Amino acid sequence: MSENNSIGIVAPQTAHFSEPLTLKSGAVLAQFNLVYETYGTLNADKSNAVLICHALSGTHHVAGKYTEQDKYPGWWDNLVGPGKPLDTNKFFVIGVNNLGGCHGSSGPVSINPATGKPWGSAFPIVTVEDWVNSQARLLDQLSITQLAAVIGGSLGGMQALQWTIAYPDRVRHALVIASAPNLTAQNIAFNEVARQAIITDPEFHGGDYYEHGVVPRRGLRIARMLGHITYLSDDAMGEKFGRKLKDDIKYGFNVEFEMESYLRYQGDKFAGEFDANTYLRMTRALDYYDPALAYNGDLSKALSQTQAKFLVLSFTSDWRFSPARSREIVKALLDNESTVSYAEVTAAHGHDAFLMPDKHYHAILRTYLSNIEVGGNHAK
Amino acid sequence: MSENNSIGIVAPQTAHFSEPLTLKSGAVLAQFNLVYETYGTLNADKSNAVLICHALSGTHHVAGKYTEQDKYPGWWDNLVGPGKPLDTNKFFVIGVNNLGGCHGSSGPVSINPATGKPWGSAFPIVTVEDWVNSQARLLDQLSITQLAAVIGGSLGGMQALQWTIAYPDRVRHALVIASAPNLTAQNIAFNEVARQAIITDPEFHGGDYYEHGVVPRRGLRIARMLGHITYLSDDAMGEKFGRKLKDDIKYGFNVEFEMESYLRYQGDKFAGEFDANTYLRMTRALDYYDPALAYNGDLSKALSQTQAKFLVLSFTSDWRFSPARSREIVKALLDNESTVSYAEVTAAHGHDAFLMPDKHYHAILRTYLSNIEVGGNHAK
Repeated sequence: MSENNSIGIVAPQTAHFSEPLTLKSGAVLAQFNLVYETYGTLNADKSNAVLICHALSGTHHVAGKYTEQDKYPGWWDNLVGPGKPLDTNKFFVIGVNNLGGCHGSSGPVSINPATGKPWGSAFPIVTVEDWVNSQARLLDQLSITQLAAVIGGSLGGMQALQWTIAYPDRVRHALVIASAPNLTAQNIAFNEVARQAIITDPEFHGGDYYEHGVVPRRGLRIARMLGHITYLSDDAMGEKFGRKLKDDIKYGFNVEFEMESYLRYQGDKFAGEFDANTYLRMTRALDYYDPALAYNGDLSKALSQTQAKFLVLSFTSDWRFSPARSREIVKALLDNESTVSYAEVTAAHGHDAFLMPDKHYHAILRTYLSNIEVGGNHAK
Repeated sequence: MSENNSIGIVAPQTAHFSEPLTLKSGAVLAQFNLVYETYGTLNADKSNAVLICHALSGTHHVAGKYTEQDKYPGWWDNLVGPGKPLDTNKFFVIGVNNLGGCHGSSGPVSINPATGKPWGSAFPIVTVEDWVNSQARLLDQLSITQLAAVIGGSLGGMQALQWTIAYPDRVRHALVIASAPNLTAQNIAFNEVARQAIITDPEFHGGDYYEHGVVPRRGLRIARMLGHITYLSDDAMGEKFGRKLKDDIKYGFNVEFEMESYLRYQGDKFAGEFDANTYLRMTRALDYYDPALAYNGDLSKALSQTQAKFLVLSFTSDWRFSPARSREIVKALLDNESTVSYAEVTAAHGHDAFLMPDKHYHAILRTYLSNIEVGGNHAK
């Protein structure tokens, strides 16, 4: 890859919203904060904004570093930067932490202004629809009427799709990657096991663990270990770990296989960083999203008012959100005679492939994004 | 199905073994018990014995009921009985609870004769090899020199395979169903998440929970919920549950989807019945089994001394032990010019298909088993 130019040092910003936001559940957030980052420069006619929507454990910190000393850059740094496929010399890129998150936006871990204590269990259930509505508020505050593009992978792809439904005239292009129009029963099942691991952890305390000075670390660790199995393909796991042993067989329940070591490491790391209440809400948002539900399961009808052009992308080895699920979106769009490009990328890494700098994958994104017109002339 | 004739009322028996058994780990069981059941009649020359090996959560109670009032018969009652595919009018069928189990054979929950207390964490790790050795002792006690057949699904199939390796002259036929010559990294990963859920349950107490008057119910529940996802195919789950809601959406973490309700029910039920230490040991036995390991990964070499004839069976929708894994066994046997029949049964139910009375599946078993000669004339 030639595009190793990072955006460099970045800093998050916080937007405060004092108008109440009514959520899909009926609950109302009287006020809320969204933390976000931007990369590149908004052009004169504000036609070059690209919104990046994050997935389950993502954040607003998409690219660059906060200090030179940071070990890792933002989570999609391989995609976003000067000269990269999502080129910050051309686009003004926005990363935002979703409502209910644990990285600065209002969520269970943030202070409930009404009580002066962390929201905890009282923080409402947020949905993909709510996220998109709150993101639209952020664009309003940034005086951006229309996005050149919205892009997201997995749960982020659901948000990109929802943008085209909820705000058809505010999105010119939607890039929906490794996503699905709703979860399958198996997807829901994995989420439910993860949630039950957290909720039944004695240190969960009904979601109000903050005031007990503990976190449901064991449950969150199990949830993340399980998640990791579904992010990787069977083949990728076989390739990377196979049946490799750490050492001589010990006949016990400590780590014997490399695979176990990897999972425990991932679980421990995540459980020390992420908020369990946020994890619960992110998985629930995934479960609930189903734009076709209001149309008797007819996805074409749900997408009939969209005006965006679409790039839908899937990965051959992704069994969490398989190519067949992306093709459902494509079919529904074609039924409506919408403009849609579809690519099924041959990749070994499973669902995680959307985060990786696969050459073919990035070439598709680069080409698609380079064809988006910005600056005065952005006829659709 | 016409074969609804149950074997009727059955009763378990217990065999005691006072000769020490050295396990693969090097640990020695000074004495042990195996609980078992038999159906049908051993013929004069003892040539009609069929051993059924159970899988992760199976038992010796394969067929029939203990009382007329029993709600359910044994776990493979649809296969075993008079006139059924494994016909008890012809065969003398033996079901045995494996060492380390929790249904009467020596295991963590049974009393350690050396201490007068439950074995708990002190019960050694048992392997597929150990199980087969202990089963051979049971045959010795029953004066059965040679099995007409050994049959098992999943982990039971591994035992059937191991019988042909460890006791080549004691098995005429091996029926290896929905099994694999070893676990993949993904299989190990699922087992590891299940184990970690149990081991990190605060009520696990290092495996010695019996003396604390508790059980690691939460962990075992999570383990079982996860297991159930892997037993069913994505399609079967979609067919059975899809995105069906229990009721109106409540926006919370209680059951919303039918899928969740099913998983919680299965988890709760199992956690109230099964022993967590046994679950740990069963999954570890799965992880460790790898007969090719001693032959540099060459399965053909590992199987080169077998004398049995084989029926290998897989199910198209089984993603836990996929048909490709069965074909590895078939290929290794063919490399050795062993006699092997292979069938890949089109079935929607995933791994669980091996327990179900699928017409095509049972027809194959019926035909194969009916061709096994017993009684004086059982030339191979």
